[in-house]
Amino acid sequence: MKTKKLVILTVILGCFMIPAHGQSKKDEKLRVNQERIESRIFELAEFGIDENGKGYRVAFTKGDFEGRAWFIAQMKKAGLEVTIDFAGNIIGKRKGKNPTLKPIAFGSHIDMVPDGGNYDGCVGSISALEIMETLNENNIVTNHPLEVIIFSNEEGGTIGSMAMVGHLSKEGLQEKSQMGLTYSEGIKVIGGNPDAISNVILKKGDLKAFLELHIEQGGILEQENIEIGIVEGIVGIVQYDVTVEGAANHAGTTPMKLRKDALLAASKFIIEVNAIALKTEGNHVATVGKIEVMPGAYNVIPGKVILGLEIRDLSFEKIELLFAEMEKQAATIATETKTTISFENRDNTIKPALTNRTLQQTIEKSAKDLGLSTKYMQSGAGHDSQEMSLIAPIGMIFVPSVGGISHSPKEFTKSIDMANGANVLLQTILQLDKE
Amino acid sequence: MKTKKLVILTVILGCFMIPAHGQSKKDEKLRVNQERIESRIFELAEFGIDENGKGYRVAFTKGDFEGRAWFIAQMKKAGLEVTIDFAGNIIGKRKGKNPTLKPIAFGSHIDMVPDGGNYDGCVGSISALEIMETLNENNIVTNHPLEVIIFSNEEGGTIGSMAMVGHLSKEGLQEKSQMGLTYSEGIKVIGGNPDAISNVILKKGDLKAFLELHIEQGGILEQENIEIGIVEGIVGIVQYDVTVEGAANHAGTTPMKLRKDALLAASKFIIEVNAIALKTEGNHVATVGKIEVMPGAYNVIPGKVILGLEIRDLSFEKIELLFAEMEKQAATIATETKTTISFENRDNTIKPALTNRTLQQTIEKSAKDLGLSTKYMQSGAGHDSQEMSLIAPIGMIFVPSVGGISHSPKEFTKSIDMANGANVLLQTILQLDKE
Repeated sequence: MKTKKLVILTVILGCFMIPAHGQSKKDEKLRVNQERIESRIFELAEFGIDENGKGYRVAFTKGDFEGRAWFIAQMKKAGLEVTIDFAGNIIGKRKGKNPTLKPIAFGSHIDMVPDGGNYDGCVGSISALEIMETLNENNIVTNHPLEVIIFSNEEGGTIGSMAMVGHLSKEGLQEKSQMGLTYSEGIKVIGGNPDAISNVILKKGDLKAFLELHIEQGGILEQENIEIGIVEGIVGIVQYDVTVEGAANHAGTTPMKLRKDALLAASKFIIEVNAIALKTEGNHVATVGKIEVMPGAYNVIPGKVILGLEIRDLSFEKIELLFAEMEKQAATIATETKTTISFENRDNTIKPALTNRTLQQTIEKSAKDLGLSTKYMQSGAGHDSQEMSLIAPIGMIFVPSVGGISHSPKEFTKSIDMANGANVLLQTILQLDKE
Repeated sequence: MKTKKLVILTVILGCFMIPAHGQSKKDEKLRVNQERIESRIFELAEFGIDENGKGYRVAFTKGDFEGRAWFIAQMKKAGLEVTIDFAGNIIGKRKGKNPTLKPIAFGSHIDMVPDGGNYDGCVGSISALEIMETLNENNIVTNHPLEVIIFSNEEGGTIGSMAMVGHLSKEGLQEKSQMGLTYSEGIKVIGGNPDAISNVILKKGDLKAFLELHIEQGGILEQENIEIGIVEGIVGIVQYDVTVEGAANHAGTTPMKLRKDALLAASKFIIEVNAIALKTEGNHVATVGKIEVMPGAYNVIPGKVILGLEIRDLSFEKIELLFAEMEKQAATIATETKTTISFENRDNTIKPALTNRTLQQTIEKSAKDLGLSTKYMQSGAGHDSQEMSLIAPIGMIFVPSVGGISHSPKEFTKSIDMANGANVLLQTILQLDKE
C-alpha cells in the first residue's frame, strides 16, 4: 500500500508541477526502475495460464481480457488518460507542454501465441509504461504529448495496428482469429467496436513518431554479446505454394529409370532454395517449412507434392530477384525429373518497412551515451511498427533474448537488458521531444 | 440358360469318362475359351461396386462375400469339390487318376484394394477355373489331383496364404483389416474359423507345385511388346522409418547459416537414396514415399522430419548392401547439416521368394510352343506365391497390363493376353502332370 500511495502522490505532483526549461543534464541522468519492470513482467505473466500451466494469453481469450484490465489499471495509476479505441487498442495519454505538437507514441502488445512466453511484446509494453512512471517520478513534462499504445491481437497478424493504418478490411474482420472468434467478434469482447473501426484510422503525420522496444528473436545480439540492436527495418514476407506433379506409381514394380517421382523433384528444389539463399549476399532468408506428399505411402512413388515457400528481406526487389532465380532452377529440375513445378502466390505479401534514418541515429546516440554496445540489424519477424511505418516515422530497439528463443515458454530476457532497452527508449523520446 | 446346361453336361462327362493314355498331341492343341475368361471378368466385376460406382471388393466386405459366393457357384458348376478352409481360402478340387500323387495347385485372389481394378488377382483366379473347364470339355483327367486356390484377403497382406504356410500368428489375427474388422472377425464373415486356423497349415511337400498367373504391374511387358513374363522371383521388401532431427526455429529471424533445417537434411537424404539405387547395377528399387514435417508451417524452420523408406530386391543381401550405403550417406548428411538421422526398421520385412528353376523352364517351353514371346523378369509386387514358396516349388506367369497400371479402376488387360497366360498355365500344368 505504501508504494501505491507514493506513486499516486508522484502522479499528482507530476501533473501540477510544470518544470523549468533547460533540464537536459537532469534528463540525461534519468533511469528507469529495473526492478519494477521485472516485477511487472512477472505480474502480467499471471494472466492467461491454461489448465496445463502453459501461457495462453491469446488475443480475445479470458487471459487477454484480464491482462488488458490489469494493464489499464497500471496506466491509470500512472496518471495516464486511458481509452480503448474501436479496434481494441489501449491508448494511454500523457499531456505535453505544447498541446499543438504531435504526440510521440510508443508501445507494443501483451497478447501471446499459444504456449508462448512472457517477454515478446510485454517488454515493450511494460517499458513504455515504465517510461511514463519515470517521467512522473522525476517531475518531467515533455513538450510533446506522449502516448503508450498497446495494440490488440498482434500475434494474430498485427490486427490492432492494421486497423490504425486503415489496412483492416470488412472481409478481414470476418476471418477467424486463432482462438475461434472472428476478429470482429473478438474486438467487441475486448471493448472495441468493429462497425466503427474506420474511425481509428490515423493519417500520415498524425504522430511525430512511433517507437517500439522488443526482444530480438534471432539470438544474434546474445551471440555477439551486444546490448542494443538498432533496427534498420522490418523485412517483407512473400509466401508461395509450390506444386510438384509427377506420376504416382507402384514402388515395387516401377523401375528406377521410369519414375516421375514428385518428392525427388521437390527435394532437389528444397536444396536449390537453400543454395540460392546461401550464395546470395545479404541478410535475406528463404525457407521451405511445409510439405505435403500424395498419396503418401511407403509403397507408392509420390505423384504430387505441395511445398510452402517463404522469402523475407528488407528489400522487396531482392525478394523478387531471389524468387526469380528459384523459378529458373525449378524449371531445370522439372525437366530433369520429368515433373512439372508451378508456383502460386499466397496473396498475403507483406512489404518491407524501413525505420527512419534519423531515429536510428538518435537511438544509436542514446545507447552510446548510456555506455551500451550497439549493432544495426534487421527484424526478421513482423511487428506492429511495420504497419505504423505507413503513417509515421518509426524507430525500433532490440534487446537480447537468451538463446534467441521466442514464442516459447523458454523465452527469457535478463532484467538488465530490459532496463537498458527502456533507458534507450526513454532517452530517444526525450531527444525527439527537443527537436 | 443354354450355355449353363451345356457346361453341366460337360462336367458330368468329364467326371465319368476316363480318357486313354498317350494323349499328348491332343493336350498340346488344348486351348482355353478366351471369350469365357473375358465374360467372367466382367461378371465378377459386378460384385462390390460402392455408392460412387467405384470397385470396392475389399476383403470381408459385402462385395467380397458376394464375389466369393459367385466364384464358388462357378467352381461347383465346373464339377469341382469346393471347400472353404479355416482361413477363408476357397479350394476347388478335381480328382486325378492317381490319388496318391501330390496335388498341383494354382490360383490367385479375387479381393481388391479400395477403388481397385478388375484384373489384379481376377485374371489368375478366372483362368484357373477356365483350365478346369477346358479339361472338362476335352475329357482330360490328369494324373495328379488339381486344386484351384482362391486366397482370402490378398490385398490386406496375403492373409490367406500366410495362414496356409503357418505365418499368421494369434496376434496377427487381432490386427485390423482395411475395412475395419480384425482379420479374425473377417475370416469368420467369409466362412472361416480363426480358432482352428492352425489346421490349414500345409507342410513342405504337401503340394507338387503352386502356379500363379497374374497381370504384370510394371508395364515392362507392354513397353517391350512381350506376351509372357516368366517370373524369376518375388522381391523381398524392407521398410524403415527415417527420423531427421534438427531445430525448429523462427524462419524470419534465424540466419541461413545458423539453421539446423531437418527438411533440408531430409531432402539431401531422399536424393542420396535415389542416387544409390540408380548407380548400383540390378533391378532393385528404393523409394521414399512418405514424409511428415514438424511443426510444418510456412514461417517455421522444420525441426523434425520422418520419412518412409522402402527397398525391394530379389536378393536380401543386395537390400542390406543398399541400406548400408544409405546409412553411410545419412551420417555424412547429418554432419553437414548439423542434424541427426536415425533409422527404425518397421519389423515387417518380407524375404525374397525365388520361383522354381525347372518350373521357369517349363513355363518358357510352354510359351514357346504356343508361339508366344517371353521375358524373364522379377515381380516387384508381393503375391500369395511368395508365401507358398515356403512349402512348395512355385511358378509365376505374367501377362501385360496396359500402361502397367494396377490398383486402379484404369487397370486393363486384353482378352488375348489373358487367354495367352491361361494357355501357358494350362500347358505348364499338363507338362508337370507328366513328370
